[in-house]
Parts: sequence; structure tokens; C-alpha cells
Amino acid sequence: MTISITQPPQVAWASGQFTNGPLIRKSTRLQNLTHVFMDEKAWLACDPQQIVYDVEMVDSAPIAGALYTGVTHLQPGKVGDEYFMTRGHFHAQREQGEVYYGLRGSGLLLLQDEKGTARLEPVFPGSVHIIPGFTAHRLINTGNDILSALAVWPCAAGHDYAALTQGFNLRVVEEVGRVQLKEYHHD
Amino acid sequence: MTISITQPPQVAWASGQFTNGPLIRKSTRLQNLTHVFMDEKAWLACDPQQIVYDVEMVDSAPIAGALYTGVTHLQPGKVGDEYFMTRGHFHAQREQGEVYYGLRGSGLLLLQDEKGTARLEPVFPGSVHIIPGFTAHRLINTGNDILSALAVWPCAAGHDYAALTQGFNLRVVEEVGRVQLKEYHHD
Repeated sequence: MTISITQPPQVAWASGQFTNGPLIRKSTRLQNLTHVFMDEKAWLACDPQQIVYDVEMVDSAPIAGALYTGVTHLQPGKVGDEYFMTRGHFHAQREQGEVYYGLRGSGLLLLQDEKGTARLEPVFPGSVHIIPGFTAHRLINTGNDILSALAVWPCAAGHDYAALTQGFNLRVVEEVGRVQLKEYHHD
Repeated sequence: MTISITQPPQVAWASGQFTNGPLIRKSTRLQNLTHVFMDEKAWLACDPQQIVYDVEMVDSAPIAGALYTGVTHLQPGKVGDEYFMTRGHFHAQREQGEVYYGLRGSGLLLLQDEKGTARLEPVFPGSVHIIPGFTAHRLINTGNDILSALAVWPCAAGHDYAALTQGFNLRVVEEVGRVQLKEYHHD
């Protein structure tokens, strides 16, 4: 009898680093984040090559019903007074949810429904986030260290960035050394 | 402006304990595991109240597209020479996958496709397991400590235990102090 024993990929909980897997890595730089930050002038003044976040994910088969898993490493930093964040997205298949776990650093998960109502969940090592369907989601790094969050999402979910060209209705900025929330009115 | 900031549930990576959430807990005892272990006589001789595993999960809304998350804590122990294990199941929606992460202890994840082909993945802290659709899955604790594994699965997956009344085709036993794999022929 021959039984196949496969060594699985591994994740280090303290850092979110994946090893030993078929992995896909993608870096998102400031130059890729056009119209994401509020202060266009400050964004233009930044180094366009600066990495804002890296995503590592297990390269698993894109089959209906399958789940993907990966980690986002979001750098600390600001554009003007606005904290570094991911672009954020709705799922193309709107009803599909996602689960996030905070692994290191500290920040916020910004959730916004299709009516534009925004809410926040603090992200920290061990935090568990059930992102429902029909809900756009964005990570914001309000700390001084890398914010790493593990995610699981349905392969069938897809991404819809276009639906958020107006951006989220809430901005998270630093003012006099403190984290502040600002409602954001689109022009 | 009133922005809702919600404290999320938390998981301790070292133990898999969930806190601060709406949680559901369920214990599975030896008396609930009829015809699961190979050695019926040894099973009958055990304390029927002995807990084999506990599942804790976040009590989130059962909506199409949503994901569930929870943790299984599988006790160390044996029935006869067969290690403690979960009942194991196919998903009722066969194409739906699942993701497991090892958190503590050491064991094996037994995977079996619909043709009856079985394979194993070692489970240990940080191990990542992409369980494809059409694949029955069972955790086996081959160590001396509790084996805890975090899971994420689609709310729509459901469970089908009946399809496995014949059990898995592979048994994991201890012989002269070593972990041994045995092909299992059903009567």
C-alpha cells in the first residue's frame, strides 16, 4: 500500500510569513494606488515605488467551491495625514463573504455596505473578522509596525474595484498624534 | 457623525481558544461515535462520557455566500490501538472546500476522495491545509497533547456523514509505540 503524505504549506503566526507552499506574491506600490488617498498632492510627492502592501497566497486550484487563503502585509506609513491602507474592494460575486484574522501590528478593518454605511473593527493579533457578503473591505494600518492579516475567501468571489471608484465614505487620519475618523464627502 | 466600532471575536493562536464572540460550543463524546473506531469491543469498554473533541465556532449568520470559522480541539487518546479522531465528513454540497490551520499539538489530516483514494497531511502549529471539494476530511491526534485546528468553511457546505457509513479506507494506529497506517477493508 502506498499512502501519499504531503507536507503542507506553513504560516508563522507571529509574522504571517508563508513557507513551503506553491505561493503567489504580489506587491502594491504607491504608484498603483491612483485616487486612493485623499490628498492627491501629498501622494504625488511620495516615492511612487514605495511598497504599501504585499499579498502572499497559496496557489491553489481556482475551482468553484474552493477557498483561497493568503496574508496581507500592510506597511506603516501615511500619505499626508492619511494612514496607509489597501485599495479595498467589493467581491464581484456580491454575496460572497470572507474571514480575516489579525496576526501582527494594529489597525482597522473598514467595512462599507452597498448603501454606503461604514463601520470599523480593530485589527490586532488574534482578532477574528467575519466579513459578510455585500460589504466592501479595506485594511488600514494605524500602527508603527507592519499590519499582517490572514484571509480566507471563496475562489468564486472575485474582486470588483470599479464599484468603489468613489472610494469609502470614511477616512482614517492622524491628527496631533492621534487616530481620527473623518466622514468623507465625494465631489 | 457616529461610526460604529465593533470589538471582534479573538482567537489565541497558541491554544485555539476563542473569546469575546457570539460562540457556539459542542462536545462530541465516545458514545456519539458509534461505528467510528475499528475495535468495537475496545470502544464498548471505554467511558462513553469521555470527550473526544470540542468544536467552538463563531455564531455568524447562515447566509448563502457567508463563511463560518471555528476551531476543533481533539483530545489525545486511543480506542484500542486506534488514535482519537473526528468522525469526518463530506460536505453535503460536494464541491465546497474548506481551509484548516494547525494551531497546537500534532496529528494528521486524512483526506479521501469519492473514489476512496486516501491521503494524509501532517498537522502541526502553522500548517495550512487546503481541502478541495469532493473530499472527505478527518483529523487524527497522534500526539500526547490536544490537537487544535482552526477551520474556515462555507456556510453553504453542510455536512454529509451518511456517505461515509463505510468509514475511511485508512486507519491510523499505534503499534509498538509508533504511528502506523493501515489500509482498512470493509466487510
